[in-house]
Amino acid sequence: MGVRPKEGENLLPSLAILGGTGKEGSALALRWAKAGYPVILGSRSAERAAQTAAELNAQLGQENVRGLDNEAATQAGEIIVLTVPPEAQISTLSGVKSALAGKILVDATARVDAKDPRPPEGKAAARAAQDLLGPEVRVVAAFQNVPAHALKNLDRQLDSDVLVCGDDASARAEVVKLAEAVGMQAYEAGGLDNGIIVEGLTALIISINKRYKSKTGGIRISGVEKASN
Amino acid sequence: MGVRPKEGENLLPSLAILGGTGKEGSALALRWAKAGYPVILGSRSAERAAQTAAELNAQLGQENVRGLDNEAATQAGEIIVLTVPPEAQISTLSGVKSALAGKILVDATARVDAKDPRPPEGKAAARAAQDLLGPEVRVVAAFQNVPAHALKNLDRQLDSDVLVCGDDASARAEVVKLAEAVGMQAYEAGGLDNGIIVEGLTALIISINKRYKSKTGGIRISGVEKASN
Repeated sequence: MGVRPKEGENLLPSLAILGGTGKEGSALALRWAKAGYPVILGSRSAERAAQTAAELNAQLGQENVRGLDNEAATQAGEIIVLTVPPEAQISTLSGVKSALAGKILVDATARVDAKDPRPPEGKAAARAAQDLLGPEVRVVAAFQNVPAHALKNLDRQLDSDVLVCGDDASARAEVVKLAEAVGMQAYEAGGLDNGIIVEGLTALIISINKRYKSKTGGIRISGVEKASN
Repeated sequence: MGVRPKEGENLLPSLAILGGTGKEGSALALRWAKAGYPVILGSRSAERAAQTAAELNAQLGQENVRGLDNEAATQAGEIIVLTVPPEAQISTLSGVKSALAGKILVDATARVDAKDPRPPEGKAAARAAQDLLGPEVRVVAAFQNVPAHALKNLDRQLDSDVLVCGDDASARAEVVKLAEAVGMQAYEAGGLDNGIIVEGLTALIISINKRYKSKTGGIRISGVEKASN
């Protein structure tokens, strides 16, 4: 963690985070930049993105992060991570669609109202993204319930897991690596349609937090050995 | 655990388990009987129920368990637990509807195909039960993903949690006690509609088990202090 690969070693892919100036996006950016990934923050405003990037670089004492508008960020990144609010999901993706072709999109969208947590309806948000983007883009659902506060504290051990759903096995495996790089345990959890269950987990966790006056509820998987790691 | 309350102490409620001769039902019955609850196994066949009850009593060296047909079991129980296969849920409930009036129904139905795990559609199975039974019955969704093998082994510590969804707060609290009595940690997780998310968790766990060649995957809640216990 925190060390960039030397020349000749395998380079880590560059990550573009759309909605990267938000709470979840910037928290993930901080951890990935610390782990040595080149990170591009995307925002509707290139200026805001550049400002947040400068703040993260200052915090880390590195220069791994830069900020661009969403479309330029998508063009510059190898793996694209979407962390915008649910109501901005489809419009943001529509604006960067052509730049996404051939890439992996990690969709963190969870359509849950924190004030009235209920099961989301219809198809998974990430399936809607896949339907919009077509087969040229490999969509993976993950990070729907990012513990932003815990990620921001770089000394903090994380006690919630990432569930990775997608139809493409190699893309799922890439996203498991991304979760491990931010310090979270991750599990492949079936196809893209299962993403709606993980969205729903966000509603469950909010319900549990409300009931027990907690702010730090999370989900862990038990009883599974990840032999391949 | 394993000690019946003495006369004068609060008596534990009697539990009727419909589908009580099946894998999940009999595993729960074993643990509840050991914890001192009077247990009635319900089955379409009273003979089969009585036979399974005798086996459980022999295993425990107690006489806490008896077997009846589903309707008689429902009449005899104070809290009713439904552990029949999904395709038998509505027909079983229809047959015992009048006997359920005034009682708590704990619905463990999860509409997931182990061979093709996908998110369940429509409303929660437990909501369908509530709609059928009307407001006279307090329906709670729980135990959708019972680790039957682990429950059957009475020495085994259980490392998965029970998520309890229901619209009636006192009924939810009763069911949390039932989960704790079988040795599982339990959390109230919102209203009855959230039950569909817990059903879906069963699909996620099966997907994870398939991917990592496991049989023991489960879900735990992290980061929540249950101060009231």
